[in-house]
Amino acid sequence: VRIDVFFHGGAAGQSDLSGRVVLVIDVLRASTTIATALHNGARAVVPFEGVDEATARARTLDRREVILAGERRMVTVPGFDLGNSPREFTGEVVAGKTILLTTTNGTAAMVAPQGAAEVVIGAFVNYTAVLALLRGAARAGTSLSIVCAGSGGRFTLEDAVCAGRFVRGVSRRGIQPELGDAARVAAMIDRGIGGDVEAMLRACDHGRELIAAGYEADLAACAGVDTHPVVPVLRDRQLVPLAARKRR
Amino acid sequence: VRIDVFFHGGAAGQSDLSGRVVLVIDVLRASTTIATALHNGARAVVPFEGVDEATARARTLDRREVILAGERRMVTVPGFDLGNSPREFTGEVVAGKTILLTTTNGTAAMVAPQGAAEVVIGAFVNYTAVLALLRGAARAGTSLSIVCAGSGGRFTLEDAVCAGRFVRGVSRRGIQPELGDAARVAAMIDRGIGGDVEAMLRACDHGRELIAAGYEADLAACAGVDTHPVVPVLRDRQLVPLAARKRR
Repeated sequence: VRIDVFFHGGAAGQSDLSGRVVLVIDVLRASTTIATALHNGARAVVPFEGVDEATARARTLDRREVILAGERRMVTVPGFDLGNSPREFTGEVVAGKTILLTTTNGTAAMVAPQGAAEVVIGAFVNYTAVLALLRGAARAGTSLSIVCAGSGGRFTLEDAVCAGRFVRGVSRRGIQPELGDAARVAAMIDRGIGGDVEAMLRACDHGRELIAAGYEADLAACAGVDTHPVVPVLRDRQLVPLAARKRR
Repeated sequence: VRIDVFFHGGAAGQSDLSGRVVLVIDVLRASTTIATALHNGARAVVPFEGVDEATARARTLDRREVILAGERRMVTVPGFDLGNSPREFTGEVVAGKTILLTTTNGTAAMVAPQGAAEVVIGAFVNYTAVLALLRGAARAGTSLSIVCAGSGGRFTLEDAVCAGRFVRGVSRRGIQPELGDAARVAAMIDRGIGGDVEAMLRACDHGRELIAAGYEADLAACAGVDTHPVVPVLRDRQLVPLAARKRR
């Protein structure tokens, strides 16, 4: 099996994803927010690329069952119920609700994959749960593509570190995947500076932007490893928690 | 001053380049080929994004003074005089000639920068010569943007290692630039695996593709540090050697 990492959403073509398990990562903040919402009881999170699409969908649904959420330039979209801060997605707010979410980079990367065997959303907060799925797929001979949301077509450190942690986690105990250039580098980055996740988030470009915009408390929420152990998977264009399977 | 690195040509927008010294890197093989050609006496190298553009330009020029060169999928474009193997660009072949060059990723990244204070082409073969220009610019307060050609909008290891070596070379002895995420990571990658350049080129994705396509000998040519000490700069859409300035 092979693991490829793509440092921004646009880097992965359909042939890179077809038949593979595709893991989409946007640590700051969409994938953290999605895992938080689903772990706190949201029924589903529906990712949208554009604000207009999300708004149009909301009009077709019972507003009591739906939460419209998202950001542009880090700030809550005007008229939306919530922004993209994982701390907003508490059980009181989201339990039983369907969340329509649109963010600057993350949700676009989540709706793009075509022909994937499975689309999974990962972050630090659900690392070990997602890793178990990836290792199962790799053992069964399925290659992995890890798509970092990045920012505007560019590399972001926090997504690369998280991607590298997944690469390292899969490449252990009996699994020796072939790694492309970006996968090798991601693993190296995580080894080099992934040790203190919160410090890394505070030092990276987007972390500093979030601090400047008043979202400093989000960094600790995004840095918590395994705080929200859920595996969000795409089913019929909605992200839902993977049902816990019985052990045989 | 600030140093930003972009891991593929499309990642850098005009605002990222405006007023900066822009270094374009395509180690395998365009920037190595350009430095080799200019050091061996070519009058100029004119980069083209497309084969048709290069061919059309050749028709307007005296064919005795022009060499049409380039590759697609690593192989010499049919009907062209030369491919993109630096070993082809010997003094006997290129001295006094203008080379029209089009390659899959590198030359497109070279024609794109608009509004840059200076566009420079770098590789391992002209590292120290180019570094001197970059350090001079940084000392004078000009920020740097290092654009890796990458491959089809993706990260490539060899360009990132070379970019990181330039980042490290500038960030020494009295210059402490602010580094973006990608610049930090590039420096880390060079520190981690840049020690043996030829071994790195043999192990990276595109190096393995070149070996498989029969271009193994090019890797040693591209790995030679400072073998072709010339600083190719863009002047009126042509790459020419920066004239050696007198010391004051």
